[in-house]
Amino acid sequence: MTYIEKLCYNAKEASKKASSLKTSLKNQALLNLAFSLEKNREEIKKANKIDLELANQKGISKPMLKRLELTDAKIDQMIDGVKQIASLKDPVGETITGYLRPNGLEVRKVRVPLGVIGIIYESRPNVTVDVAALCLKSGNAVVLRGGSESINSNMMLVKIIRDSFDESLIPQNVINIVETTDRAAVNELLTQKKYIDVIIPRGGKGLIRNCIENSTIPVIEHGDGNCHVYVDKYADMNIAYDIVINAKVQNPSVCNACESLLIHKDISRDFLPKIVNILGEKGVEIRGCDKSLEICPSINKASQEDWATEYNDLIISLKIVDSLEEAILHIQNYGSGHSEAIISDNTKSIAEFKNRVDASCIFINTSTRFNDGYELGKGAEMGISTQKLHARGPMGLEEITTYKYIVVGNGQVRG
Amino acid sequence: MTYIEKLCYNAKEASKKASSLKTSLKNQALLNLAFSLEKNREEIKKANKIDLELANQKGISKPMLKRLELTDAKIDQMIDGVKQIASLKDPVGETITGYLRPNGLEVRKVRVPLGVIGIIYESRPNVTVDVAALCLKSGNAVVLRGGSESINSNMMLVKIIRDSFDESLIPQNVINIVETTDRAAVNELLTQKKYIDVIIPRGGKGLIRNCIENSTIPVIEHGDGNCHVYVDKYADMNIAYDIVINAKVQNPSVCNACESLLIHKDISRDFLPKIVNILGEKGVEIRGCDKSLEICPSINKASQEDWATEYNDLIISLKIVDSLEEAILHIQNYGSGHSEAIISDNTKSIAEFKNRVDASCIFINTSTRFNDGYELGKGAEMGISTQKLHARGPMGLEEITTYKYIVVGNGQVRG
Repeated sequence: MTYIEKLCYNAKEASKKASSLKTSLKNQALLNLAFSLEKNREEIKKANKIDLELANQKGISKPMLKRLELTDAKIDQMIDGVKQIASLKDPVGETITGYLRPNGLEVRKVRVPLGVIGIIYESRPNVTVDVAALCLKSGNAVVLRGGSESINSNMMLVKIIRDSFDESLIPQNVINIVETTDRAAVNELLTQKKYIDVIIPRGGKGLIRNCIENSTIPVIEHGDGNCHVYVDKYADMNIAYDIVINAKVQNPSVCNACESLLIHKDISRDFLPKIVNILGEKGVEIRGCDKSLEICPSINKASQEDWATEYNDLIISLKIVDSLEEAILHIQNYGSGHSEAIISDNTKSIAEFKNRVDASCIFINTSTRFNDGYELGKGAEMGISTQKLHARGPMGLEEITTYKYIVVGNGQVRG
Repeated sequence: MTYIEKLCYNAKEASKKASSLKTSLKNQALLNLAFSLEKNREEIKKANKIDLELANQKGISKPMLKRLELTDAKIDQMIDGVKQIASLKDPVGETITGYLRPNGLEVRKVRVPLGVIGIIYESRPNVTVDVAALCLKSGNAVVLRGGSESINSNMMLVKIIRDSFDESLIPQNVINIVETTDRAAVNELLTQKKYIDVIIPRGGKGLIRNCIENSTIPVIEHGDGNCHVYVDKYADMNIAYDIVINAKVQNPSVCNACESLLIHKDISRDFLPKIVNILGEKGVEIRGCDKSLEICPSINKASQEDWATEYNDLIISLKIVDSLEEAILHIQNYGSGHSEAIISDNTKSIAEFKNRVDASCIFINTSTRFNDGYELGKGAEMGISTQKLHARGPMGLEEITTYKYIVVGNGQVRG
C-alpha cells in the first residue's frame, strides 16, 4: 500500500466504527474538542504564524492571506461551531419515512453516514475543524488535503483534534490528513474509489476542475457564485442600500458575494446615483449598462462578458431592467445557481422571483452573504454545493448522509 | 440546432412550466392517462406485437423477449402504477425543514423538481409509462431513449401519453422520445448538459458503462445486483425455503434476484439437502463451497469468481459460513450494495446484520425481490440506484427532486 492508500484504508476502517458511535459519546467528544481548541489557542496561532510568514515571503495575495489567517475571532467562531454541532440533532439512525405495506411488510428509510469523505481545500484552516466536527457527528470518517500554504496550521489542528478524540474514546482515524504537499498526492486521492465515497473540493476554479476531470469518485461540485441582487420597483430603499453594500463589500472574495446589481427602471433615477455614490466610497468599481451611464456618466461601461463574471473583488456589474420579467430572464441567463436576492415589498414580485429563479438559495429582503452553513444554523459547513443532485447550498450534517431501506417481513414473497 | 438539441431544448422549456403545475391538474391528467391506456390497450398490444415479431426474427434471448412483452397483466400494472402515482403526495413545494434564526431570518428548505431527466433504457416498454407518470407528478420533463427492440411499443405509448396530456392541458413536451434508433443519438444526448439535469441509465452493464464514461451530465448509477440471502442458525426454516426460491427463481434475470446463498453451519446439515433438492427441481444450477460439497456431493464446485458474479440466470452460488460474522464479512467483500437479506428469528443477529451490511435495501425475513418502486409503495420507479449520493434504492417521486433554500428577511445584513 502507498502512503495515500494506507491513509484512505485507515479512514474506511474507522468509518465502520464511526457509523455506530453513540450520540452522547459523540457530543461529549465535540465538547471536549471545543475545550481543547480553547486550551491550545496560542499553539494554533503560533503554527498559523509560520504559515503567514511563509506566505508573506512568497508574496501571496491579500485576500488569500486573509483567508489563511486564524484571528482570535475566527478561532472563537470555530469553537462556537463545534459546540453548535454538539447541540444539533444526530442525523444517524433517523427514520426519514416509515410505513406498512398492504402485504404486511414494514418499510423504513433510515439515515446512515456516507462513509468516507475526501475533502480537498485551499487556505482557510478553519475548514479543518468544521469538517472534523461535522464528520464525527454524522458518523463519517474524513481524509483531508489542505493547501500547502496552510500546512502548519492544519497539522497543528489535526494533532489537537486527534489527541482530543483519543481522550474521548473516539477512533483517531475518523480524521486523517495528507501530510505531504506534493500535487501527485491529490490525484492519487481522487482515485481511491475503494475507500472514499465522495470528494468535496473547496477552492478556486482550477482545483475544482482538476477534481471533476480526474476523480473516479463522485464529486460534489462547489462552483461559481455569480450572485445577483435585484432591486424591485417596490423595494424599501433604506434596506436596499444596506443589503447591496453588505452583499458586495463585507467580504468580496467569497462565493456568496454579490457580483451583479439589477435595478428596476422606475426607481433607477432615485436609487442609482445614491448607490453609485456609496459603492464608490467603499472603493467598488462599477461597470454599468448604457442606460445606467445616461444617469451616472461616471460609471464604467460593462461589456457582455461582465454579466457572466464572478469578480471575487471590489467590482460590480450593474444593469437597469425594464421589468421583473427582464430581471428574472437575466438571472436565468447569467446566474450560476448559487445565491440570488430580491429587494421588494410586493408579494407578487417576491412570489414570481422565488418560484422562477433556480438557485441554491433565494434571499428576500436580505443579503446573499447568508448562504453559509454557520449563518443558516448548521453549525458549520462542508462547503456550498452548486449542483442539484444530492445536496444543494450549504452542506451540514444531513447533507453528508445517505439512507438505506430496512424492510421487515415474516416470510412474504413476491407474487 | 440538431434534432437531439431541439428535443432537449423543448424538454427544458416544458420543465419550466411543469414545475409550477397545480397538483389537482397533474392528478387529473394522470387519471386521464390511466383511462387512455385502458382505452388503447389493443393498440398497445398491436405495436408491441410488431416489436416481438422483429425480436423473434433477430433471435433475441428468452429473458429479453420476456422483458419486451406487454402482457395484459403488465398493462394492468402500468395502469395501476399511474393511478397510484396520482394518489401519492405531490413532492413539489413541500417544506422539508423550516425554522427561524436568532436574527429573525425565516429559513425554509423547499422541495423543487430537478428539471429535465434523460433516461436511457432497454427492452421494457412499461418503463415509458412509469417514467412519464413519475416525471409529470414531480414537475420534471423527460427525454426518453428506449432500445431499438422496443421502438414500436415506445412510440405508441408516447403518442398515447402526449395526446392524453394535451387533452388534460399539460404541455406535451413534458415527455419527449428520441425517435431514431442510431447509437450516435445516445452519445449526443449524454452531452446536452445545458438542457438535461441528470441521466438515468437502465439496462445492461455495457449501456451503463457507456453512460458513465461519456456523459458530461451527472449519472445516477444503476449498477450490479450481487444479492445475498443469509440463512442464520436461528432461521425459521419454513419461510427460508420459500424466500430463497422466490429470490432466485421468480424472475432470475433481474437485479434484485438472489445470486448467492449463505448458510450458517449449525443448520446446514438439515437445510442444505432440502434446499438443494428444491432448487434442483426448479432447474437451478448450484455452485457450492467445499463444505457444501461434503454434505451434497452432487453440487458443482464454486470458483473464487462465482462469489463476485451476478448470473442473472438460473444459477446460484452457495457457501456455508461458520458464523454471522463470516456472513457479514463475505457480503462486505462481495456484495454490490443492492439488496441483502437475512432469515433469522434472533434479534441480535438481525440488528448486527441490519447495521453492518451496507446496501440500498436490507431485507429481514423476506425476499430481495421486493427492492422495487411499485412493491415498496412508490407507484413505479425510475430505476434502482446502487450509488450512495442523491438517491439509493428504488427511485420514486421524491428521489427525482432537489430543493432550494428560501430565506426571508426584513433588511438583515451579515456582521
